[in-house]
Amino acid sequence: MQNITALFAAHPNLPPDASLIKTCAAACYECAGLYVACSDACLGETHVADLVCCIRTCLDCSDVCLAAARVVSRLTNPSPMLVEAQLMACGAACSMCADECESHAAMHEYCRVCAEACRACEQACRALLHGASFQ
Amino acid sequence: MQNITALFAAHPNLPPDASLIKTCAAACYECAGLYVACSDACLGETHVADLVCCIRTCLDCSDVCLAAARVVSRLTNPSPMLVEAQLMACGAACSMCADECESHAAMHEYCRVCAEACRACEQACRALLHGASFQ
Amino acid sequence: MQNITALFAAHPNLPPDASLIKTCAAACYECAGLYVACSDACLGETHVADLVCCIRTCLDCSDVCLAAARVVSRLTNPSPMLVEAQLMACGAACSMCADECESHAAMHEYCRVCAEACRACEQACRALLHGASFQ
Amino acid sequence: MQNITALFAAHPNLPPDASLIKTCAAACYECAGLYVACSDACLGETHVADLVCCIRTCLDCSDVCLAAARVVSRLTNPSPMLVEAQLMACGAACSMCADECESHAAMHEYCRVCAEACRACEQACRALLHGASFQ
Repeated sequence: MQNITALFAAHPNLPPDASLIKTCAAACYECAGLYVACSDACLGETHVADLVCCIRTCLDCSDVCLAAARVVSRLTNPSPMLVEAQLMACGAACSMCADECESHAAMHEYCRVCAEACRACEQACRALLHGASFQ
Repeated sequence: MQNITALFAAHPNLPPDASLIKTCAAACYECAGLYVACSDACLGETHVADLVCCIRTCLDCSDVCLAAARVVSRLTNPSPMLVEAQLMACGAACSMCADECESHAAMHEYCRVCAEACRACEQACRALLHGASFQ
Repeated sequence: MQNITALFAAHPNLPPDASLIKTCAAACYECAGLYVACSDACLGETHVADLVCCIRTCLDCSDVCLAAARVVSRLTNPSPMLVEAQLMACGAACSMCADECESHAAMHEYCRVCAEACRACEQACRALLHGASFQ
Repeated sequence: MQNITALFAAHPNLPPDASLIKTCAAACYECAGLYVACSDACLGETHVADLVCCIRTCLDCSDVCLAAARVVSRLTNPSPMLVEAQLMACGAACSMCADECESHAAMHEYCRVCAEACRACEQACRALLHGASFQ
């Protein structure tokens, strides 16, 4: 977070409202990584057959969050329409993944960690959707 | 396309309407790759400064198309809501990229090739959005 | 393949030996997609617990092939050292994934399809490693 | 970092030497994101034509680091051979990107930030290559 803050501060096209963008990008990147680790932890359980839906959801959400993180963190000539559409997809993905992981949280601590990060990312996406002007 | 057709045919969760999914996944994967090549070709031009918007658009769209391709081609426990949200983002991305690349098509043959693939991908996303039941 | 051929033909930095690059990029992109579909098909089997190693291998190889495809298909200012290192990783990944998928090929047709594509991609990576000058 | 630490701690296949893996995964993920932002900042400069090599290098390195991060952070049934090959590619990529970005560091603060993160990631890859047993 410290490095992306320093990098953004020197960016030639930094918008006035960069803090929402930065928080959202950081949350999306974190989730993209956590979902890989959560799906891998599920895959390592002896009762993996009960976790197929969680694995699949995490894999999808990782892809969607990664796309959102990359689109949002590009500050040169952004397209508000595309940013918004990808943030909508990302918010939906995080909400879905949070629901799924929460249902396993009592049994798997890693699902609890993942679910909390999902909720934070969903909020960061919605905050940027409603609070930012991308132009 | 031949391989993904053969692979899908043997998938334990193949839905009845797999042809729309297959066409959409193939188009999204193709665009994800073409956009990388198109942005790289733009980057190689001496007048790269005139192509900044095209490069940025291609980079975004590659990320969004890749996420769509991966989400759509997973047939086990898909989430209709997430598939739809990512297809909306992908259709918007392809439409935008087609407009941008068409504006350079007279000068750069690679932008013409890229724009045509964008339009085909946009259509494949919309066909899947309207024609498929994901359950 | 037709579109990437047309796009490369118009690229300002097309090297003389582009056919090896094109074949390799196409094979890497194809595998990156097939591995996603193969891991998803495995995930859909009732005996998923027997396929954990195959799923994990496919997920890794998809990531490595995607990186290789993107690095190889950029023709502007390529770094021979990085291209070679990523092709080495990709050849190793495809060889490993082919071995794994072949061991399930008799039972799962999709693993047979995936294994054949792995071998073709491994060969394309090695052909480019040995045949190309990247400068 | 806090979340991935908590998630790894609950992973069913946590190896004894997870701290090197965690540091490496975190550094690779961070670089994968910073390179996107650095290439985008370069793209926003009026003298973008002087930064083509930096943009291209950052795009490649982002892809290679992302693949490394994902491969390394999967703890279930890892393949030492593939992990090593991808870490070699990633170390080479980070070294190359650090050199390139350092050459612009006096003029562009974001290149300085990026170069420092490159060096840290290169070290984390080499530490894991030499210090870890992946089995």
